[in-house]
Amino acid sequence: MNEFDLIARFFRRQHDGEGVVLDNGDDCAVLDIEPEQQLVVSIDTMVAGVHFLASMPSRDLGYRALATALSDLAAMGAQPRWFTLALTLPAIDEAWLAGFSEGLFELADKHQMALIGGDTTRGPLTISIQVHGVVTRGQYLSRAAAEEGDIIAVTGSLGDAAAGLRVAQRQSLAETAEEAFLLRRFERPTARIEEGLLLRDYSRCAIDISDGLLADLGHICAGSGLGAEIEAALLPCSSALSTVNSNERLEFQLRGGDDYELCVTVARENWSTLAAQFSSRDWPLTKIGRMVAGSGVCVHDGDEALSALPMSANGFKHF
Amino acid sequence: MNEFDLIARFFRRQHDGEGVVLDNGDDCAVLDIEPEQQLVVSIDTMVAGVHFLASMPSRDLGYRALATALSDLAAMGAQPRWFTLALTLPAIDEAWLAGFSEGLFELADKHQMALIGGDTTRGPLTISIQVHGVVTRGQYLSRAAAEEGDIIAVTGSLGDAAAGLRVAQRQSLAETAEEAFLLRRFERPTARIEEGLLLRDYSRCAIDISDGLLADLGHICAGSGLGAEIEAALLPCSSALSTVNSNERLEFQLRGGDDYELCVTVARENWSTLAAQFSSRDWPLTKIGRMVAGSGVCVHDGDEALSALPMSANGFKHF
Repeated sequence: MNEFDLIARFFRRQHDGEGVVLDNGDDCAVLDIEPEQQLVVSIDTMVAGVHFLASMPSRDLGYRALATALSDLAAMGAQPRWFTLALTLPAIDEAWLAGFSEGLFELADKHQMALIGGDTTRGPLTISIQVHGVVTRGQYLSRAAAEEGDIIAVTGSLGDAAAGLRVAQRQSLAETAEEAFLLRRFERPTARIEEGLLLRDYSRCAIDISDGLLADLGHICAGSGLGAEIEAALLPCSSALSTVNSNERLEFQLRGGDDYELCVTVARENWSTLAAQFSSRDWPLTKIGRMVAGSGVCVHDGDEALSALPMSANGFKHF
Repeated sequence: MNEFDLIARFFRRQHDGEGVVLDNGDDCAVLDIEPEQQLVVSIDTMVAGVHFLASMPSRDLGYRALATALSDLAAMGAQPRWFTLALTLPAIDEAWLAGFSEGLFELADKHQMALIGGDTTRGPLTISIQVHGVVTRGQYLSRAAAEEGDIIAVTGSLGDAAAGLRVAQRQSLAETAEEAFLLRRFERPTARIEEGLLLRDYSRCAIDISDGLLADLGHICAGSGLGAEIEAALLPCSSALSTVNSNERLEFQLRGGDDYELCVTVARENWSTLAAQFSSRDWPLTKIGRMVAGSGVCVHDGDEALSALPMSANGFKHF
């Protein structure tokens, strides 16, 4: 099986992708963007042994690779459209590829995304995905648009993926329903696409939590020239994570990467409407603090500011 | 130095990239496409030890990685605009990075391309670049648009890069001016961007020769439902390649990858005008054959058809 056969067999799918004039099979893909839209793009790489364990089931890996890339579109409030895949493989393993493409397209289909191009090469297992989405002109969320006094909120729950990674690293199966839930949160994160689209009506500022809350909220602070104060007791905790001892739990919630929840800042006058919109859809959205003058993230635990948290704590590092 | 420092130091440049609303530093880049334009994208990966020798100077590698990706835009007749970079590195080597980014931006600046986003991760040296260009609506070149009777032509000369790769593989310096030229053709290919833009007025069909003439012209044949007849004696040969013995030379010209010249098909009535346009700019364009009914590529050497060339000869394989 050569590169062309491999692509034809595992990665060429019928699709009715909107705006696709020409897709994989030519030198480039050709795409239509509507005049009132702007293009939103992001590229992400996952390397075996660095971002995932080589033992991870390929179906979950395919799903996760696209989910983590999609999360950047969610953080912009963009509508997903197309993606490209640069896949480097040590060898052609048909069972592995079948699983990978199944997981990949499971999520792509959910968001009506079309795979429009890619490159398949031999080498150490590495997956780069570039996602392409659209926003109505000017209607994107950025990390630099928080304002003083804004309420800080997060979707979903925090710390699950970090706890799930620990389960995976133990190299044994999850032993309890809670562990299985946490592992699932690591292996199959949810890109909060729908939430991001809804947020655009109430906010201009969001980020996805890939490197941990402290690090990513820190990016909002740096980008917006402000500080943030959050309450440890307010951080949303899944019932599965609540089985972990409280010191570790807080560490996971503050510094654990890979949750891919959204952190958003909202003007106080918009908060109750936004919260009601989320609530009416049964989507969790939890207020955890507020943007203040200054710089950096300050975590309060009751009356005590956890000043022991060094500001250089940047969450998950890729180097 | 962490990932953010590294990006700031080596990959964040002032640019006046057209259409860039938001670039690297947020979760995604946001881009403007003019209403009369279509977006053209392609992604390419280069892996150390597979696509280049690990000993290759990083400055040349940065140049080459972007050049090979740009070549796909050239083959579409697209105007280059933006690129993203997914860079996986075994360690942070500042001298290596300085050279890589210098070579990369040397070429980016030549085409006024802006680096709008990327991902930097730890792992085996792997470079994925996605290029983004624009074409006026419908005015792109594809590999599926050849017509029977079209003249087949190629830009530049063929076979140099394959001969240059052999020089590099010897792991010694080029010993003659000819070897230095051939090595340079491998290490610093020229993406035929200007040529591609000009071709759009005279053709709808082109491909870039990355896998070898036989393989890539074969893609035009397959895409267009036609065959091709070419004359071995017509294949353009640099004076440096003419120092190589004739059997090897023909092999390099027909099957050698990495030349990144364009192969184009042109209606006979457009040929003389197109040739004059190239000639007036001192750009080489050589007629090598014609498109015929049938399938596959037939190479004639004088009166003899080189039937010894198996049609499964697909040039450079990545697996």
